[in-house]
Amino acid sequence: MSDFIPLSVPNLKGRELEYVTHAVETEWVSTGGPYVNDFENKIAEYVHAPAAVSCQNGTSGLHLSMLAVGVKAGDLVIVPTLTFIAAVNPVTYIGAEPVFLDCDDSLCMDPEKLKVFCEEECELKDAADLANGSSSNQKVLIHKASGKTVKAVVVVHIFGNMADMEKIMPIADKYGLRVIEDATEAIGTYYTDGIYKGKYAGTIGDIGVYSFNGNKIITTGGGGMVVSEDKEYLDHIKHLSTQAKSDELYYEHDEIGFNYRMTNLQAALGLAQLEQLEAFIKVKNDNKALYKKLLAGFGGELLENRDNIRSNCWFYAYMCKDSDERDRLISHLKEHNIQSRPIWGLISEQKPYKGAISYKIEKAKYYRDRVVNIPCSTNLSENEVEKVCEALKAFKG
Amino acid sequence: MSDFIPLSVPNLKGRELEYVTHAVETEWVSTGGPYVNDFENKIAEYVHAPAAVSCQNGTSGLHLSMLAVGVKAGDLVIVPTLTFIAAVNPVTYIGAEPVFLDCDDSLCMDPEKLKVFCEEECELKDAADLANGSSSNQKVLIHKASGKTVKAVVVVHIFGNMADMEKIMPIADKYGLRVIEDATEAIGTYYTDGIYKGKYAGTIGDIGVYSFNGNKIITTGGGGMVVSEDKEYLDHIKHLSTQAKSDELYYEHDEIGFNYRMTNLQAALGLAQLEQLEAFIKVKNDNKALYKKLLAGFGGELLENRDNIRSNCWFYAYMCKDSDERDRLISHLKEHNIQSRPIWGLISEQKPYKGAISYKIEKAKYYRDRVVNIPCSTNLSENEVEKVCEALKAFKG
Repeated sequence: MSDFIPLSVPNLKGRELEYVTHAVETEWVSTGGPYVNDFENKIAEYVHAPAAVSCQNGTSGLHLSMLAVGVKAGDLVIVPTLTFIAAVNPVTYIGAEPVFLDCDDSLCMDPEKLKVFCEEECELKDAADLANGSSSNQKVLIHKASGKTVKAVVVVHIFGNMADMEKIMPIADKYGLRVIEDATEAIGTYYTDGIYKGKYAGTIGDIGVYSFNGNKIITTGGGGMVVSEDKEYLDHIKHLSTQAKSDELYYEHDEIGFNYRMTNLQAALGLAQLEQLEAFIKVKNDNKALYKKLLAGFGGELLENRDNIRSNCWFYAYMCKDSDERDRLISHLKEHNIQSRPIWGLISEQKPYKGAISYKIEKAKYYRDRVVNIPCSTNLSENEVEKVCEALKAFKG
Repeated sequence: MSDFIPLSVPNLKGRELEYVTHAVETEWVSTGGPYVNDFENKIAEYVHAPAAVSCQNGTSGLHLSMLAVGVKAGDLVIVPTLTFIAAVNPVTYIGAEPVFLDCDDSLCMDPEKLKVFCEEECELKDAADLANGSSSNQKVLIHKASGKTVKAVVVVHIFGNMADMEKIMPIADKYGLRVIEDATEAIGTYYTDGIYKGKYAGTIGDIGVYSFNGNKIITTGGGGMVVSEDKEYLDHIKHLSTQAKSDELYYEHDEIGFNYRMTNLQAALGLAQLEQLEAFIKVKNDNKALYKKLLAGFGGELLENRDNIRSNCWFYAYMCKDSDERDRLISHLKEHNIQSRPIWGLISEQKPYKGAISYKIEKAKYYRDRVVNIPCSTNLSENEVEKVCEALKAFKG
């Protein structure tokens, strides 16, 4: 099918082969080798973070981040219900439990509901008053119904949009919540105005996580990266990612670690991809503008990003009237050799999470029924955008 | 240091670059693409298993294997104390607990102690008599002191030697234990005689796991593979390795899954490596024979493999008199630009496992104090083996 238009595929036309060839020819393909550190440094530089630590993928980055901020078995972690399940599964890996929250019209976590949940469903206590209180200044948020500690919130920057960090950060601060930014879809997105002007997605909370999975804007095949202002978090994450060896020679391990470190071969790919990231973001933005222009006045609508940001425009969200139209549209596009997909099912409704705590899920259901992602690869030509728009119009008409 | 002799490094002089180039040029570098399935099929064919499922590394393969055989939070899993910690950490990931066992003179699990542990420390009960008994035929092994169920045993084929599967399998069968073979170090090792004649390490128990980490006999940078006779186990492992999606389009997930699937880029490397595996095994065996010849009559001793096997001879184990000699030898070799390392510290003595159940650890301590691994790369030349032997003799003399 030469005219098949995929949803989102890798674009490896830069120096990928050159760097990968170097890795193979020098026989540095595993977790040692020069590219891993180099890729970490260049990602940190790109997002203006002091340092970065690589890992196997976004899932492992989120897992290690939760461990680093102190999430423990029995704790609660606030998560969005409308996102990919990889943002939530690590909560369960640790033996903690998710609390599912709704989205606002940005598709990201609703700050208003976050605030009301903390205010009404929880109680802020001094750590010193609790059994294991260590510091009298520390506040601990206790979920009243379960009696459990709410330790952190995972904020996902959906499709490259920015969650409302201006509202979320003061709430997290007030209630003593650690903020893990799941920026797996949003590398390159930053605030252009406001109190966070110049700040990149992933660098506002306590820890930020990027993904270089095959469908992401830049890819290492599979891979991830963690950034933070806090060196202790990053050191701990690196330690945990390499089986927590405290003595390299005598194989002593002071914690339960993981095999989560990125390889030199992955990093070779990543470095070449990063060199093209700004160009890719331009293509994504240009193609979105073209989609909007071609669809203008016809009734089809793409969701807008937050006003005061430069978005990486990773995925485009096309709005249908309802789930029936959504399903028919996806079939229609498939008949025209165009790949599309519905947004994710709500995680709070998935089998393994049916018993979990959910808080006023409303908008997430609305968008779950209506959003369709349409082709957005950085390989996508103007001609292909036109074809997709013709197919969208043919469906409507 | 041009004359540095490393312990064990990758050897990528076959078709690695050709296949990796193909992966990059076709832009198939993530979990899709032709090489992953191809590599799975060729590994299965090589070890005479019906099928294989790839994963990110040996650790993730062991993790998924434990989940597949039904290890649950609160269960016990019997593991060796003398091995790399990656064989044990997955027990903890699940919330189960390890029971540490001793080795015999093969460095692998002592079958005699396994038997006595099951006989004396545990009690075999009918599942039907227990609370959640499902099948009246099923036996459940209960550890008397803790009241917990012993669900499985992880048997590690240390350094490419074969654990005593002829004795271990009937014990596991008698006591209803699932057997996970950690064959991460032993791909290519097989029985040449006896009841398992022709059977490869990893294909005798319920599930076998291989590793393609950078220091292994063949490498994918980082990677792993699981084999089994049981299609249900493999299907489940593949499902869990790809975030347990039960509906690909609508993002429905019926279990807590993981991001553990191998990428096409890793598999490209693996395929090229597998083509050379038999040649690598010959080099490893030839170099071991040369070491033995050059060290003969001088007092230095390399541990032998089990009689009735063809070993992949992954790592060579040189015996010192005591831990003091061991430490001095490692320093001496380092001064001669030769990398060596002591065998691992006992896992039962590591900080995170200090409270765990241990059963009569004796020989493991003896070997822990005495074994030094000396250079064994498949790149190692005869000249380099001679240099290492000269350094060993200079130390002794």
